[in-house]
Amino acid sequence: MPFRASLVTLYPEMFPGPLAVSLAGRALQRGDWSLETTPLREFGEGRHRMVDDTPAGGSAGMVLRADVLARAIDAASPEGDTRPRLLMSPRGRPLTQRFVRELSQGGGAVIVCGRFEGVDERVIEGRGLTEISIGDYILSGGEMAALVLLDAVVRLLPGVMGNAASGDAESFETGLLEHPHYTRPAVWEGRSIPAVLTSGDHGAVERWRRAEAERITADRRPDLLSRRPALPSGAGSRGN
Amino acid sequence: MPFRASLVTLYPEMFPGPLAVSLAGRALQRGDWSLETTPLREFGEGRHRMVDDTPAGGSAGMVLRADVLARAIDAASPEGDTRPRLLMSPRGRPLTQRFVRELSQGGGAVIVCGRFEGVDERVIEGRGLTEISIGDYILSGGEMAALVLLDAVVRLLPGVMGNAASGDAESFETGLLEHPHYTRPAVWEGRSIPAVLTSGDHGAVERWRRAEAERITADRRPDLLSRRPALPSGAGSRGN
Repeated sequence: MPFRASLVTLYPEMFPGPLAVSLAGRALQRGDWSLETTPLREFGEGRHRMVDDTPAGGSAGMVLRADVLARAIDAASPEGDTRPRLLMSPRGRPLTQRFVRELSQGGGAVIVCGRFEGVDERVIEGRGLTEISIGDYILSGGEMAALVLLDAVVRLLPGVMGNAASGDAESFETGLLEHPHYTRPAVWEGRSIPAVLTSGDHGAVERWRRAEAERITADRRPDLLSRRPALPSGAGSRGN
Repeated sequence: MPFRASLVTLYPEMFPGPLAVSLAGRALQRGDWSLETTPLREFGEGRHRMVDDTPAGGSAGMVLRADVLARAIDAASPEGDTRPRLLMSPRGRPLTQRFVRELSQGGGAVIVCGRFEGVDERVIEGRGLTEISIGDYILSGGEMAALVLLDAVVRLLPGVMGNAASGDAESFETGLLEHPHYTRPAVWEGRSIPAVLTSGDHGAVERWRRAEAERITADRRPDLLSRRPALPSGAGSRGN
């Protein structure tokens, strides 16, 4: 069964959006994955299809109603659906490449896109939603976060990138940021490609790349270094 | 001068994409911000408009050429353009709400969308690109990351959200994740709104929200607590 993404959203017209283009778009056309939207508005209350209400206890903004969201989630994901149910939310567990890979190995995901101040906590509990955050910044809604999550997942699906995706070992799976890249021309605006890269000495190239990856990671993201699993000496080089 | 976003990309058809909808879309129509794309392909080499080449030193994948990218960046951002030049890249400085806010107070940004294995390091140096990462996962390209960055920035532009954006103090600016939200109905599937929220005691509501925000942050993101600036007792409550 190809990966099936079901989105619960107030803005179904945002999908597939940029996922209709390039790699993800071709994979969608081939049927390597599918996407369907459940328009939250259709499950709203009353003549005006209201989906939100003011926060209990007061404060600015509006909160998505538990009953309305639950009806939409139940329509998108009937009983027996074993796909994980995610809620894109800045309060969530930070998205990692490891989680992306896990998702890509399953049958799909039900993705609820939050809006406004947030969603009623009871629907998170009642429908077993896992909150996922793509980063420590605030978006206008969960739709953009869902697009990011799906882009990351789709490129790992079988047949989508072929061997190219194995290159992911480079970043976040070794725990190091990538070394610098160079290509032709050999000299550009007086700047040359580092001589080691054109030396033909593959061992020296690997050592240089490894040292550069370590230098850049220590400089920019020391937090990644402290999170790395201990590796036996010589292990963990690029492509492993 | 409204915020002006200039994108250098192989996939101009991805823009404005989801940014044409909802809040950002209405702001775009009103002229609160503008978006233009510089199609990288037009600056490619030769009859086939090649933009990439194999990595110096060998390995899988392709690298975007420095000369091609520089021509496109120079077209998007002529001399005298004081806007920051960003490169969306998993090696970059992690995007934060603080940086989003800084950007929203400036005149715009030139955003280069990376693709393939990466871009030639020399164009990063030669054109003074600041690498920005939206998170520790791998996307098919920088376009989706640019959409996220712009969504976060646009909602903070003058006139876009009005007072609603002041609610941002809730997350990432106090260093705490948000407390749970509730709204009508009072009881849903046997689950009630916590009594304190309907007590009418505003002080008790504030204390409960603060304690819940601290509990959730300690549970899910202890890293945020250790990064918080020391605050005098009682300071830093929601809305500050």
